[in-house]
Amino acid sequence: MSLSDAPVRRPTTAVRVLAVDEQGARERPDQLVTEEPLEIRVHGPRQEPVPLVVTMRTPGNDFELAAGFCRTEGIVAGPDDIDTIAYCLGGDGEQLYNVVTVKLRAPNPSPARRQYLANSSCGICGKAALDDVEQRCAPVGTGPLVSAGVISSLPGVLASSQRLFGTTGGLHAAARFASDGALRVAREDVGRHNALDKLVGEALLARALPLTDDVLLVSGRLSFELVQKAAVAGITVLCAVSAPSSLAIAAAERFNQTVVGFVRGDRFNVYAHPERVDAG
Amino acid sequence: MSLSDAPVRRPTTAVRVLAVDEQGARERPDQLVTEEPLEIRVHGPRQEPVPLVVTMRTPGNDFELAAGFCRTEGIVAGPDDIDTIAYCLGGDGEQLYNVVTVKLRAPNPSPARRQYLANSSCGICGKAALDDVEQRCAPVGTGPLVSAGVISSLPGVLASSQRLFGTTGGLHAAARFASDGALRVAREDVGRHNALDKLVGEALLARALPLTDDVLLVSGRLSFELVQKAAVAGITVLCAVSAPSSLAIAAAERFNQTVVGFVRGDRFNVYAHPERVDAG
Repeated sequence: MSLSDAPVRRPTTAVRVLAVDEQGARERPDQLVTEEPLEIRVHGPRQEPVPLVVTMRTPGNDFELAAGFCRTEGIVAGPDDIDTIAYCLGGDGEQLYNVVTVKLRAPNPSPARRQYLANSSCGICGKAALDDVEQRCAPVGTGPLVSAGVISSLPGVLASSQRLFGTTGGLHAAARFASDGALRVAREDVGRHNALDKLVGEALLARALPLTDDVLLVSGRLSFELVQKAAVAGITVLCAVSAPSSLAIAAAERFNQTVVGFVRGDRFNVYAHPERVDAG
Repeated sequence: MSLSDAPVRRPTTAVRVLAVDEQGARERPDQLVTEEPLEIRVHGPRQEPVPLVVTMRTPGNDFELAAGFCRTEGIVAGPDDIDTIAYCLGGDGEQLYNVVTVKLRAPNPSPARRQYLANSSCGICGKAALDDVEQRCAPVGTGPLVSAGVISSLPGVLASSQRLFGTTGGLHAAARFASDGALRVAREDVGRHNALDKLVGEALLARALPLTDDVLLVSGRLSFELVQKAAVAGITVLCAVSAPSSLAIAAAERFNQTVVGFVRGDRFNVYAHPERVDAG
């Protein structure tokens, strides 16, 4: 596949704020994380592009985001399913930086995003959600054995790589590491699901999927949606700085994924499949 | 309108975790925030219920969540538009606690959730998103004047009312206060948008909308989606413990809402419409 040139839009926005403290109020400049809608359109050969989703995202790595979303939602199985990814052209030929079109090599499978949601006659429930994900991903592999020291080191490494968070305090991050703790790739976004989709999209375009031997760290909480996306990417070890949810753990148990939460200082909790953690 | 009995499902889930620290690893009990899908269906008289959305939520205040979502998405304008809210019955007559049906007094307007997203021929952008919200809400009112001392007091009051967060560390919260800092209502959820929808739904069902004179506090970051929901509810003063996004501030500027961010200790920043803040 080929990418057209990806122009950089600013991921932060300069503003002036009224800063109030015990001394009183004064105006000063500040930086906000940029939040802008991105529409992802999909089409096959000789098909018109159809909108797949609109997500509120931080500009940057837009093509990775589109590729990752298409992978984690089951639209594509690998990089060879994608012909091109490009920003749309408006009526006047100008590039539209909030609309990305993914051209597939085969006809668009008319993706029904989370179709199980509307189809389940027995009522939607956590089990139906898990069944749906299971249909879309192979079981994850054996994966690495990760030491407690490596796990405890990850948040510090991620924090030092989070360029935008330091400026704005407003971003989520997702990063993948080698099992010895070496940072491989980190991505940031105003939406936590987008940060992970960018990470998965980077790996897809780099032909690095599945990420069996990597360790994932997310900056916040771990929800079902994140576990689902990680399962599709073949991630075996998931770490979070904050708390997982009940359905996140149920999913990880089912998909054979290790979940580590509350990674803070020298402490953490292992919620699922502790056999990949060397607490020793 | 009337509500059928709302059975309580557990908002937390008991698990056993492997707790690792410098002393080694030991198993102990823990509590996770419950995350379960909720499908909201809508219908009018003599219409079949159609699915409106599935959201991953923490069980509890489900009818408020359904009512609030219908209000903030423009399905209903007030409580008199709603006939009943009830859990669905399955084929065997059993109540399905993850499916809520909202029966309207008038025919379902066939809500096109975020229709602007697919319709904008010029490409989606922040301005299109703002235009869409503006069509769905009246400008907010004058609102209160809030002192710096009151603003600084809000996170402590919310934290002491957050029953579930203390147990699980996994929840977002949204609360509304009188302008003197008295807590009126607080709601928690694994999803930040759900916590606010529950808050709006509670107010809708209590016939308290618009919330012109209240002060909103959210526990985390402030995104465009939250500002949009607050605008529909008529909220004039929005406070957040963490950072707002660029589009959140653009929306608040447009809709005449005050935004206060990074409320920590005696400090905070005012990002939009500071005229409602008495910095002392």
